[in-house]
Amino acid sequence: MNSNQLFKRIQAKQSFLCIGLDPDLDRFPAHFPREPQSILLFNRAIIEATKDLCVAYKPNLAFYEALGSEGWAIFEATLEMIPDDHLIIADAKRGDIGNTSRKYADAFFNQLNCDALTIAPYMGSDSVLPFLEYENKWVVLLGLTSNKGSQDFQSQLLEGGQPLFEKVLETAKEWGSPDQLMFVIGATHPESFARIREIVPDHFFLVPGVGAQGGSLQAVCEYGMNEKCGLLINSSRGILYASNGEDFADAARAAAKELQEQMCRYANL
Amino acid sequence: MNSNQLFKRIQAKQSFLCIGLDPDLDRFPAHFPREPQSILLFNRAIIEATKDLCVAYKPNLAFYEALGSEGWAIFEATLEMIPDDHLIIADAKRGDIGNTSRKYADAFFNQLNCDALTIAPYMGSDSVLPFLEYENKWVVLLGLTSNKGSQDFQSQLLEGGQPLFEKVLETAKEWGSPDQLMFVIGATHPESFARIREIVPDHFFLVPGVGAQGGSLQAVCEYGMNEKCGLLINSSRGILYASNGEDFADAARAAAKELQEQMCRYANL
Repeated sequence: MNSNQLFKRIQAKQSFLCIGLDPDLDRFPAHFPREPQSILLFNRAIIEATKDLCVAYKPNLAFYEALGSEGWAIFEATLEMIPDDHLIIADAKRGDIGNTSRKYADAFFNQLNCDALTIAPYMGSDSVLPFLEYENKWVVLLGLTSNKGSQDFQSQLLEGGQPLFEKVLETAKEWGSPDQLMFVIGATHPESFARIREIVPDHFFLVPGVGAQGGSLQAVCEYGMNEKCGLLINSSRGILYASNGEDFADAARAAAKELQEQMCRYANL
Repeated sequence: MNSNQLFKRIQAKQSFLCIGLDPDLDRFPAHFPREPQSILLFNRAIIEATKDLCVAYKPNLAFYEALGSEGWAIFEATLEMIPDDHLIIADAKRGDIGNTSRKYADAFFNQLNCDALTIAPYMGSDSVLPFLEYENKWVVLLGLTSNKGSQDFQSQLLEGGQPLFEKVLETAKEWGSPDQLMFVIGATHPESFARIREIVPDHFFLVPGVGAQGGSLQAVCEYGMNEKCGLLINSSRGILYASNGEDFADAARAAAKELQEQMCRYANL
């Protein structure tokens, strides 16, 4: 899927919602047995309840790895459940020296057939470029993340006054076209979106931090959209755990629907 | 294992060698069938042939994840093969927002019982601190990596002239004591070791880049050691693939032995 095709799906669904699949047994509805296989039932119910309201799903590897090889098998089975017309973003924050990044790319793009993978930029070009050698696959590079710790290094000013994350964006946009590279930009930094759009006008942003982390969808849309939408808004906990009862899937749908309707209000698709 | 205990093992073995377990079927000795189960036989042979010459093993997750859930099971089985008196460093370069880092910490420290985990610093304090809540477990934080791309961001100068990686070391050393925090410092930057030791005199460094990547063991020892050794020198490919024949384990042992003897020559343990 390239950026034009993604934009067409966004228009068709009137949604640029991405739903994070972060299954945490401790937060599951009370009626689920606290066993790994419950994740399959939970994920299936969430996907069925929300698939017409979102264009992407983002399984977060930590929540599967915490269950060992069984968790990894559940991750693989979850990927099978996601309808073909949705972008699958593996949220794994990988990145290593070249020969190792090539193995991770093989794992996520060839073996698992994910569409996109989140990557950390700290190790530089040769840690990222192996992921960009695949056709119709996306690198989603960390730019300015939504958490408090983003101030520790990402916001440090370089000589000349540019914050590190801007240098990352400026450097990395040369590595991949807007058809193969997106950036993670947290919704908790609405004041930065206008400046960021100047640096990377054409690339899609994956935007976490709306909802549980307090970011404003309206501000993100106002300052972050481009003429092909250019945004994927992620919500995980706010949708998955909207209810702790047997109505969890209906509640998840309602939460997703509310976000999708807000998107229509703030964005002209 | 704390830093004193690690130093004692280093003294007892006269070695501060860490062996990277990066099993790549494409590079296996010719007589191994090209199937995932061969990795178990290969890893067992390597561990048996080298365990008296090293104090740590560092399995690299990419090489296991590339084989899906079966690879993850092989990773778990490999951990079981490593003798108890060796430090197990899971080379996974994880790091994410707090609730996700907590899940990764649970995966690697509780479920898999690894002793140490490599972590990327880009997302800042709240992405690293959850890993430091475990007793007798280590965070191995990326400082200055051995690859060419380390120049892209790690070596960028901040206002005032300090390179980013120094800021990372200076900031992160406050997060964890030398009994729970190490730094990755690549052997390909020998000119930086003296300055780095000024910033973090007491922490252990995990040093990749000797061997296949061209770093000098002598320079690393000269400028990087402290009074408790303070170094773990990693070698992966140079040992694992020392021979492509049926003598691969003997050749691996010889390559490890050569490094261990060089260590004795350059270091006073």
